[in-house]
Amino acid sequence: MQTVSPNDSYGFQVEDLGSRTVSSPYKAHRFVRDDERTVHETAISSQGDRADRGTSSLRSSFELAGPREKIYFDPTKIRCGIVTCGGLCPGLNDVVRAIVMQLFHHYGVRNIYGFQYGFEGLIPRYAHEAIMLDPKAVAHIHQRGGSMLASSRGPQPTEEMVDALERLNIQVLFCIGGDGTFRGAENLAEEIRRRNLKISIIGIPKTIDNDISFTGRTFGFETAFSAAADVIRGAAVEATGAFNGIGLVKLMGRHAGFIAAYAALASRDANFVLVPEVDFELGGENGLLANLYRRLRERKNAVVVVAEGAGQQFFDEDEGSSTDASGNVRLRDIGLLLKERITQYLRLMEVPHSLKYIDPSYLIRSAPATASDSLFAGILGQMAAHAAMAGKTSMFVGFWNHQFTHVPIAAAVAKPKRLNLEGNFWQSVIECTGQPHRMTNEAVGLCDSPEEVLVASCASA
Amino acid sequence: MQTVSPNDSYGFQVEDLGSRTVSSPYKAHRFVRDDERTVHETAISSQGDRADRGTSSLRSSFELAGPREKIYFDPTKIRCGIVTCGGLCPGLNDVVRAIVMQLFHHYGVRNIYGFQYGFEGLIPRYAHEAIMLDPKAVAHIHQRGGSMLASSRGPQPTEEMVDALERLNIQVLFCIGGDGTFRGAENLAEEIRRRNLKISIIGIPKTIDNDISFTGRTFGFETAFSAAADVIRGAAVEATGAFNGIGLVKLMGRHAGFIAAYAALASRDANFVLVPEVDFELGGENGLLANLYRRLRERKNAVVVVAEGAGQQFFDEDEGSSTDASGNVRLRDIGLLLKERITQYLRLMEVPHSLKYIDPSYLIRSAPATASDSLFAGILGQMAAHAAMAGKTSMFVGFWNHQFTHVPIAAAVAKPKRLNLEGNFWQSVIECTGQPHRMTNEAVGLCDSPEEVLVASCASA
Amino acid sequence: MQTVSPNDSYGFQVEDLGSRTVSSPYKAHRFVRDDERTVHETAISSQGDRADRGTSSLRSSFELAGPREKIYFDPTKIRCGIVTCGGLCPGLNDVVRAIVMQLFHHYGVRNIYGFQYGFEGLIPRYAHEAIMLDPKAVAHIHQRGGSMLASSRGPQPTEEMVDALERLNIQVLFCIGGDGTFRGAENLAEEIRRRNLKISIIGIPKTIDNDISFTGRTFGFETAFSAAADVIRGAAVEATGAFNGIGLVKLMGRHAGFIAAYAALASRDANFVLVPEVDFELGGENGLLANLYRRLRERKNAVVVVAEGAGQQFFDEDEGSSTDASGNVRLRDIGLLLKERITQYLRLMEVPHSLKYIDPSYLIRSAPATASDSLFAGILGQMAAHAAMAGKTSMFVGFWNHQFTHVPIAAAVAKPKRLNLEGNFWQSVIECTGQPHRMTNEAVGLCDSPEEVLVASCASA
Amino acid sequence: MQTVSPNDSYGFQVEDLGSRTVSSPYKAHRFVRDDERTVHETAISSQGDRADRGTSSLRSSFELAGPREKIYFDPTKIRCGIVTCGGLCPGLNDVVRAIVMQLFHHYGVRNIYGFQYGFEGLIPRYAHEAIMLDPKAVAHIHQRGGSMLASSRGPQPTEEMVDALERLNIQVLFCIGGDGTFRGAENLAEEIRRRNLKISIIGIPKTIDNDISFTGRTFGFETAFSAAADVIRGAAVEATGAFNGIGLVKLMGRHAGFIAAYAALASRDANFVLVPEVDFELGGENGLLANLYRRLRERKNAVVVVAEGAGQQFFDEDEGSSTDASGNVRLRDIGLLLKERITQYLRLMEVPHSLKYIDPSYLIRSAPATASDSLFAGILGQMAAHAAMAGKTSMFVGFWNHQFTHVPIAAAVAKPKRLNLEGNFWQSVIECTGQPHRMTNEAVGLCDSPEEVLVASCASA
Repeated sequence: MQTVSPNDSYGFQVEDLGSRTVSSPYKAHRFVRDDERTVHETAISSQGDRADRGTSSLRSSFELAGPREKIYFDPTKIRCGIVTCGGLCPGLNDVVRAIVMQLFHHYGVRNIYGFQYGFEGLIPRYAHEAIMLDPKAVAHIHQRGGSMLASSRGPQPTEEMVDALERLNIQVLFCIGGDGTFRGAENLAEEIRRRNLKISIIGIPKTIDNDISFTGRTFGFETAFSAAADVIRGAAVEATGAFNGIGLVKLMGRHAGFIAAYAALASRDANFVLVPEVDFELGGENGLLANLYRRLRERKNAVVVVAEGAGQQFFDEDEGSSTDASGNVRLRDIGLLLKERITQYLRLMEVPHSLKYIDPSYLIRSAPATASDSLFAGILGQMAAHAAMAGKTSMFVGFWNHQFTHVPIAAAVAKPKRLNLEGNFWQSVIECTGQPHRMTNEAVGLCDSPEEVLVASCASA
Repeated sequence: MQTVSPNDSYGFQVEDLGSRTVSSPYKAHRFVRDDERTVHETAISSQGDRADRGTSSLRSSFELAGPREKIYFDPTKIRCGIVTCGGLCPGLNDVVRAIVMQLFHHYGVRNIYGFQYGFEGLIPRYAHEAIMLDPKAVAHIHQRGGSMLASSRGPQPTEEMVDALERLNIQVLFCIGGDGTFRGAENLAEEIRRRNLKISIIGIPKTIDNDISFTGRTFGFETAFSAAADVIRGAAVEATGAFNGIGLVKLMGRHAGFIAAYAALASRDANFVLVPEVDFELGGENGLLANLYRRLRERKNAVVVVAEGAGQQFFDEDEGSSTDASGNVRLRDIGLLLKERITQYLRLMEVPHSLKYIDPSYLIRSAPATASDSLFAGILGQMAAHAAMAGKTSMFVGFWNHQFTHVPIAAAVAKPKRLNLEGNFWQSVIECTGQPHRMTNEAVGLCDSPEEVLVASCASA
Repeated sequence: MQTVSPNDSYGFQVEDLGSRTVSSPYKAHRFVRDDERTVHETAISSQGDRADRGTSSLRSSFELAGPREKIYFDPTKIRCGIVTCGGLCPGLNDVVRAIVMQLFHHYGVRNIYGFQYGFEGLIPRYAHEAIMLDPKAVAHIHQRGGSMLASSRGPQPTEEMVDALERLNIQVLFCIGGDGTFRGAENLAEEIRRRNLKISIIGIPKTIDNDISFTGRTFGFETAFSAAADVIRGAAVEATGAFNGIGLVKLMGRHAGFIAAYAALASRDANFVLVPEVDFELGGENGLLANLYRRLRERKNAVVVVAEGAGQQFFDEDEGSSTDASGNVRLRDIGLLLKERITQYLRLMEVPHSLKYIDPSYLIRSAPATASDSLFAGILGQMAAHAAMAGKTSMFVGFWNHQFTHVPIAAAVAKPKRLNLEGNFWQSVIECTGQPHRMTNEAVGLCDSPEEVLVASCASA
Repeated sequence: MQTVSPNDSYGFQVEDLGSRTVSSPYKAHRFVRDDERTVHETAISSQGDRADRGTSSLRSSFELAGPREKIYFDPTKIRCGIVTCGGLCPGLNDVVRAIVMQLFHHYGVRNIYGFQYGFEGLIPRYAHEAIMLDPKAVAHIHQRGGSMLASSRGPQPTEEMVDALERLNIQVLFCIGGDGTFRGAENLAEEIRRRNLKISIIGIPKTIDNDISFTGRTFGFETAFSAAADVIRGAAVEATGAFNGIGLVKLMGRHAGFIAAYAALASRDANFVLVPEVDFELGGENGLLANLYRRLRERKNAVVVVAEGAGQQFFDEDEGSSTDASGNVRLRDIGLLLKERITQYLRLMEVPHSLKYIDPSYLIRSAPATASDSLFAGILGQMAAHAAMAGKTSMFVGFWNHQFTHVPIAAAVAKPKRLNLEGNFWQSVIECTGQPHRMTNEAVGLCDSPEEVLVASCASA
């Protein structure tokens, strides 16, 4: 596997299958050179360290995506494949459509296979037929949610999959998926190298949780937090529609609270946002329950948003932890736990209340992409096709500093993305909800007076 | 006026009213220092010029927005004002709401005036009453389109406005508007300097056309192109619903074709996108009409998207040019001209057809913000409040490299933003529509064969 | 209580407070007379029985709603109250707004009280303050979901409520609610009669389940099934996005399956619709599980829609049955039961599958009204105001044969509405889903061959 | 042509092709008999005239739609055709889909042709190929606006069309269209009778204007007024966003103002609604201009909604009148005329103002159907298939008293539908807008004082 060192003199280096000898049939007004790059780190300071940090940031940079003048594959002979893996995510069809349109119309590729049900589609024993993809087959798919290729969770045997690629004479495989898929794609690339094959593996990052590093945006995330914001608004309507109404919303976010945080900030209707990155306690003077009590006392309603990965420490370790087909630890249901604990607590406190619990997960995953995500996913697909034709491999298409980039898959796999609790964004969430910076008890009295939760909420109710 | 030199050793410098002596009541987990900056230019190359370009790009950078530990104004005494100027834009209410919520809840400011009808609200003879703004007054406004403060076009006498600020004892004026408003804001700041007053003028850029420089995003633009993408989809439905159906859509974009280009790419339903930045001809073998003819011949339908500022050269210069209240040249109606010319041409060519013309302008301007724009506009407002309390002035809040920034208003006024015709984005638009790179006649045969328009469209129909 | 006899010579008779002596200030082009009516039964047959059925149907008819020339109350002196009771329902704010606008602008009423939190608002010990309602207070409320007056479940002591009406000198109480509310309203009316008071009790039927009789439509129902149809579409996206994907959707419908049936038909994406009116079995050759198995075998996906009140017989009677504050029996969760049973069964059958369960309840209840419901709710409010001013009481505003009507509350309370399993509508649902007429086992082989479920589904997948 | 007499003893009689000898393969729980009917007139009065009116109304009734036990055509041999004619209307694809699904799945019909571009599709010289329709071809079309069969305006030679039906051996032609299409369909039926052919002509009424009689609802109308209500809301945002802002919206409605009236009532944001059925004047003390002036003076904004067919008398008769391909008189543009006259007038009156003109026509026509329209359109298609298989002809599927019905096409052609200005609905519109009952000058002072327009508007601003 190639070395990924963000600090070496050229930054994130992407692997090539070999030297390019074919003139691109693509009609660009300007082709992109491999040495055009964008810096990874953009922060500088005028306090002395400027030059140094600047120099160092130069070294860490990403190759720009785009059409290359010389390409590696002969488009008239190439056979390409596409798989969509993991959970559904808005925009999948836009990516598939754009890859097909680009390859077909602009490179003249005529053999594009859609493998059904994720990596299963490459394993003979599942007997999932591949679909021939051309402009007619994909013309309208971007107007629907889901994936026309369907999906599945979990890995499949690497060798069997490479066997299939060889047998079907596939030169490019586009893998649209998340970190599990990317690990699978890395394995594929490694096996391909081992066999000395010339097959390109191109990733397009799909993570509704927005937790893949080295890309500033992933498709579907905006659709997801937009839909989630509507759900929070609904919860606020319910919360204000009853005396001491509580709207409790569980959102996606296994390890990263991006959807919860963005949706809360977009709706401006949440009073508490609980994310995996921030520990909180239920009990104690500064725990969630006491804060919720105070909120109800003063405002007669509350909206609580919780990411599915938050508060996992409240579950009994002894229950054992199972994993799903993708190898993800099965999360215990923090939404239901909060629902029970809040209800119990308020009954004990003799506070009449009305709690409405909303878990919109699949409604969000199955939505068609917003216009903005549709646009973004479409360009991702276009760029993925350019990268593939140029013979790039073991990379994914990222987005950085408003440019589309090539990033080694290994880099993303190595380091997942999390909410930066020191940054302005999380600060804005705290501001907007009015929730305490911390809902743990050791620090009470220092930074957050328990009473202040009520004063500062910018929410509507 | 301060010097704006993007090449000096600290880049874009923002003016301060004076030294800060007040401790911020704002509860930040981390305050932002004035010397934290983000680079302006992120492109580098590994071909020798790296070091130099890198070094120079370091010099050009933006100050980061965010809460300062020491602030300039005493929040308990300060009086602030807000105006919204120019045409409506989705998200105006979100910005107003966020400024008020931030000032009120997090700084404790109690006197916030909403001046009605833009700069007119500061001129006594209009007798527009100012509105007292507090959390209750703004709680739900972000759910509606338009501006709760209403707006007006055009400048007002600078001295009269500063007189009003003095008379009302306003220390901060938030000006939400476009380039005309920013010129007005600069004039205000200059007059304030001349009088030696300590009044902060903070801009929040509002341009539905996305044509303000030095900010990577402006609120409302995403809402606008999303709504426009729906309109293009409608046009495509009409175009494919009749024999040789033509859907002709006029979109906003006086000098910059961003909305047309983004909406076309988001909908993937346009076959021709005409923008102010690209000259085109109607006649000749490679003009729009002949290309449209060819498209109809092969596909029996066509969707044409034109930005309002495109093709202004087709109008008779002698008609004279008038200007509107904002001082903008009144554009002649390219949509109606195209409608007439296309109809005439196809009648002469004896091509039966059905042209449907759609001009959705106000429908787009009056829409409520999408979730993403709502989130963005809200943070802009929060950051504007931070900047104001810190005593910054003559600046606007920008967004660069995923950070909120402070930018001198003068910089934006000096250099408007346009589509980069050499960039990948415009290339993606060309790809997706399948339109020729150029629809002028001098170059026919070199780069675009006239026949090719039909082959390569990735549009749905 | 007045006699309700749908077979007497004038049909459904509405009670009046007394003779009308005030000239209406309302500017109608045509006032409605009390003897204008619309027939209850519209079906006739040409097979001999025509005359008879015709004559009998004449006898059963509804009084038309609308402005009366003479009214009972002096608008300048009257005090009116409004309560919203029970679960939230889209359109509540539209009704409240319309009542207020009508009373204020067209009758000149100046004292309109909004009692908060349903009937609780009339009980002193809750100390919920009443809200003064005027055009400004309600101008924008119809753009939001929920109820600006908030709501509560359950009855309150009738005498205390009438005491409150007397003490506050309220002459008209508008009760917006469902069957529980209507029973409460009837009790109020009876107590008012007993005390010989002249207070009008006007009901506006609110039932998201559409299960109130003698009105062809209730506000919010269309919004509800429209939102539910979107949910079903999302479930279908999930179902087709995985191998043997199953989308399971639980919808509202305690005793009546209208929402499930309408949403299934609107989305055309459901394969099984389970409603309270139709018994079904899980096991056996013609039970749901076997039918589901066959569907998966042939089509690799299935969408199951279940109304919350369906299949209650599957729960252990011994668990005891509790009731909620409204006196409704607490339903056991058929959605979760189906989820478990289906999963168990398919595991035993070794059918790999992926089940996604969606329970959108509060998302639907909290939605703002569709345009059509907004329009309908608004007219209901207008008509309720007319009825009140005319001195009608103990009635609700219905809709029959495209006319707004006056119906005795007692009639609706006596006979709830259910899906007509013999009618064309349910037949259309069966047709569209392709599900067997019956999923019970005694009848297998007669009307539905078990294999046929697969053939006839008109759903998209 | 058959006699249509709504007063004869059986009411609206529908023509049959002959006696039915085939047992229906359709699995109904209950078949509908031809003698099951629903009354046309539902109004009765208790003032003496009851019996008479009742009796007469019995005579006028509609045959119920639904599956017949015996059918006329042999489903295994039959060939059916579908055409969509005239302007686009939301729901067209739902109707087409439902007809195909019903015929294919429930009757076993295998030959269904979609003729493209309306009646043109039946005329050889246009060379439009017919499309084979089956469940796969139509599975997803209901999710898109427009018509998958495309459409055209205007009649085609009757004899040539019947020649085509004979040549292609078509036994049933479904004609989805408006009054022009229905006239064409009647001509087809007559020619078919003349030739003694056994071809069924079934109409499905399509009129976005809702102006076809003897059906209480037509598909697409709800979608249309819902979309129009959004447009009016946008106009209100613009109107309140500027000083003396005027939002002027032109809506569809050639002869009937239903869309304008319904959209105004749904949005509750219009102050003036101008429809073809109500004459109005521009000048004079009680003309539109003076009323608009008063509205601006008091409220500083106004929203004016005009149906395209209103105010045609303001155009110079001498301009001559042209007709479009459908034979409709080309309307002069009342929207632009009002825009000009209002601007001129307010300039002369020296009233600063800002008028925004919105003409959303095609945006509305091209929208996908709302859930409610989708459901309704789907059942229409199902019922049309039932009627065709039973051998009904020269009829259309209507909706009356919440039942689907069979109505002779001739009845609808003879008597178009208009707003009932004496009814409660129009009264509600007047109430809600606050506009004078009449804006003509002869009657000033009697019923509407000019000043009152301002007082009574229930609009939001």
